[in-house]
Amino acid sequence: MREIQGLKPEHFLWKVEDRIATIRLNRPERKNPLTFESYAELRDTFRALPEAADVEVVVLASNGGNFCSGGDVHDIIGPLVDMDMKGLLAFTRMTGDLVKAMIHCGKPVVAAVDGICVGAGAILAMASDLRLATPQAKCAFLFTRVGLAGCDMGACAMLPRIIGQGRAAELLYTGRVMTGEEGHAWGFWNALHEWEDLEDEAMKLAHALAEGPTFAHGITKTQLNQEWSMGLDQAIEAEAQAQAICMKTRDFERAYRAFAAKEKPVFEGD
Amino acid sequence: MREIQGLKPEHFLWKVEDRIATIRLNRPERKNPLTFESYAELRDTFRALPEAADVEVVVLASNGGNFCSGGDVHDIIGPLVDMDMKGLLAFTRMTGDLVKAMIHCGKPVVAAVDGICVGAGAILAMASDLRLATPQAKCAFLFTRVGLAGCDMGACAMLPRIIGQGRAAELLYTGRVMTGEEGHAWGFWNALHEWEDLEDEAMKLAHALAEGPTFAHGITKTQLNQEWSMGLDQAIEAEAQAQAICMKTRDFERAYRAFAAKEKPVFEGD
Amino acid sequence: MREIQGLKPEHFLWKVEDRIATIRLNRPERKNPLTFESYAELRDTFRALPEAADVEVVVLASNGGNFCSGGDVHDIIGPLVDMDMKGLLAFTRMTGDLVKAMIHCGKPVVAAVDGICVGAGAILAMASDLRLATPQAKCAFLFTRVGLAGCDMGACAMLPRIIGQGRAAELLYTGRVMTGEEGHAWGFWNALHEWEDLEDEAMKLAHALAEGPTFAHGITKTQLNQEWSMGLDQAIEAEAQAQAICMKTRDFERAYRAFAAKEKPVFEGD
Repeated sequence: MREIQGLKPEHFLWKVEDRIATIRLNRPERKNPLTFESYAELRDTFRALPEAADVEVVVLASNGGNFCSGGDVHDIIGPLVDMDMKGLLAFTRMTGDLVKAMIHCGKPVVAAVDGICVGAGAILAMASDLRLATPQAKCAFLFTRVGLAGCDMGACAMLPRIIGQGRAAELLYTGRVMTGEEGHAWGFWNALHEWEDLEDEAMKLAHALAEGPTFAHGITKTQLNQEWSMGLDQAIEAEAQAQAICMKTRDFERAYRAFAAKEKPVFEGD
Repeated sequence: MREIQGLKPEHFLWKVEDRIATIRLNRPERKNPLTFESYAELRDTFRALPEAADVEVVVLASNGGNFCSGGDVHDIIGPLVDMDMKGLLAFTRMTGDLVKAMIHCGKPVVAAVDGICVGAGAILAMASDLRLATPQAKCAFLFTRVGLAGCDMGACAMLPRIIGQGRAAELLYTGRVMTGEEGHAWGFWNALHEWEDLEDEAMKLAHALAEGPTFAHGITKTQLNQEWSMGLDQAIEAEAQAQAICMKTRDFERAYRAFAAKEKPVFEGD
Repeated sequence: MREIQGLKPEHFLWKVEDRIATIRLNRPERKNPLTFESYAELRDTFRALPEAADVEVVVLASNGGNFCSGGDVHDIIGPLVDMDMKGLLAFTRMTGDLVKAMIHCGKPVVAAVDGICVGAGAILAMASDLRLATPQAKCAFLFTRVGLAGCDMGACAMLPRIIGQGRAAELLYTGRVMTGEEGHAWGFWNALHEWEDLEDEAMKLAHALAEGPTFAHGITKTQLNQEWSMGLDQAIEAEAQAQAICMKTRDFERAYRAFAAKEKPVFEGD
């Protein structure tokens, strides 16, 4: 295990405090688009997380009233139009690798979304484990608007599982905005908070997770993703094994000792 | 590629205009039941769609205030009662083949549902990609009422993915009506419209789809169905490949050129 | 086939009437916790159901205003803390085997939930086919509170499919209570009833199911679970086969004869 709080990413803001890493795209004047460089750097950062001893939760935060405007038209879409197939597949795989890295990072990711959250930005929210937003959040999977398919970075697999197949189909075929209210009613956003409270609520949630049994959280994350396409009997056996592992942690014993002593358990993540 | 607007189906109404095919069952006095003949003809029509150059979107419309009353008691259920297993399996496979043909037709299908939408009629709505209805729409998976199981034409796989496993189980075990309001709240209907607006809204949606990047829509449809039972990592790789294909279309380039020129892109489906 | 109404379980209440078995945990003064013994006895009872001729529906009922408080801290969690891996895996597999036995019992299970429904109790509700509750029902997957992961007895596979991946993740990571209203809006509870009506409504539903085509209900249950991880085309073929089987039942013929005679069909489950 090593520390990653000293990372100096060049293409997004990075802060680690109380074992919570906060990531913030940083071109607020353009609503925080992604570029080839920020995609790659985000992927590498999430890839470093499983080994990181000093981070237990990640918060993907907004900046200047917006979350992320997706792949930049000039910096990304322009070059893609002229790219050969080898280059295109390298690009789509890199973006997919960012989602895979988020899924396999072993730690809960909380998105805190205000304002624009579109294209690949909507994917970053979708690939997070928990999602808070403001009522003003505008989320759109607008790939169709640039002539592409809705199947971007896992959207055709993940979005139906979050909001249902029919609503997902509508968002992916039409590229229309899902309002904050809709996203909350449909289970995309776990909760809505006014913008002045959003970051506090996200940090409160992140702290609660970081103070929980973080080893077990990692197993929860693994199983939530791992059982996606398992048969039901196989999932039940997989959980029997996964939970037996957790019952060998000291956090489980700590919880029992605390309950027996009528105290609040203090978890240490091992 | 060939044209299919000249099709002369005998067992339902068929119209092609602006690359939108409208299908309408046509026994309104009996709320539009299905028969052996209309099942087979619908299946064959959807099977012809992948090769059809002149149709980009299908609308399944209502007729005389109702969508479809399902398999006719006299024309279908009666004969089935006396059929041998070979004949029964040929029938259930034919009905399943209609759903498979809808799924694999490569073009978005929009259901516009007023009034009765039950049994196999509810399945036709369920197997569509997008679903509009009136507040008066009555949708019921009433197989249990005729002594059958809820597993008809894919219902036990598809309905849970649209409205959730618990609600699907209730509808399939009890055969009760899902009201328009329920269906909307649960994500079965994408929107509710009064009956006098329903067809206009369906055609507006169909036009928007037909004017979009139709090649990419076909890929969206393929992936929404294809990734159903993939692992999450596999789905992400599948989407990296599928989207790379779309980035080689001229529609993608057209979108970029239009954005760069601050114009609205005009898609041509290639 | 044999009769099981004469079962004399020692660790829960058991009643069979009108082919409806009612199960009730019976330590109301402690909100009905589970113990090693009741887990095993419940598993064995559900395992006996496929062969039982005298039971068609199971109701999991509440007792003294509560459903179930989960694995008992002193009777279960204490011993687990000191157990070796072989013992732990035997335990988690036994709890998983209870869910598997519920899934494979061949008959609809209706949960009627009032008050506390937490931990393994929440799992018993989740693994039921239909779920009624009072507005006061408090459901929590609180494994994380005792230092464990959310993957218990199939929760990471089943809960997302019932209420969506995002809401499931929140409940499993935080262990927070899902209120009755939330559970209803999210599709976890099929309906809410005041506590004085809950049992009547559950029995009404159970009677309706028991008077339906019970052989076909068993096939509905099988397919709802079996198609979980099938591809879409494979699920459609599986349903063609499963429904053809049901078309060979006398209940199907009974339904047709009754409809032709404008009578209400009387099903007999064969």
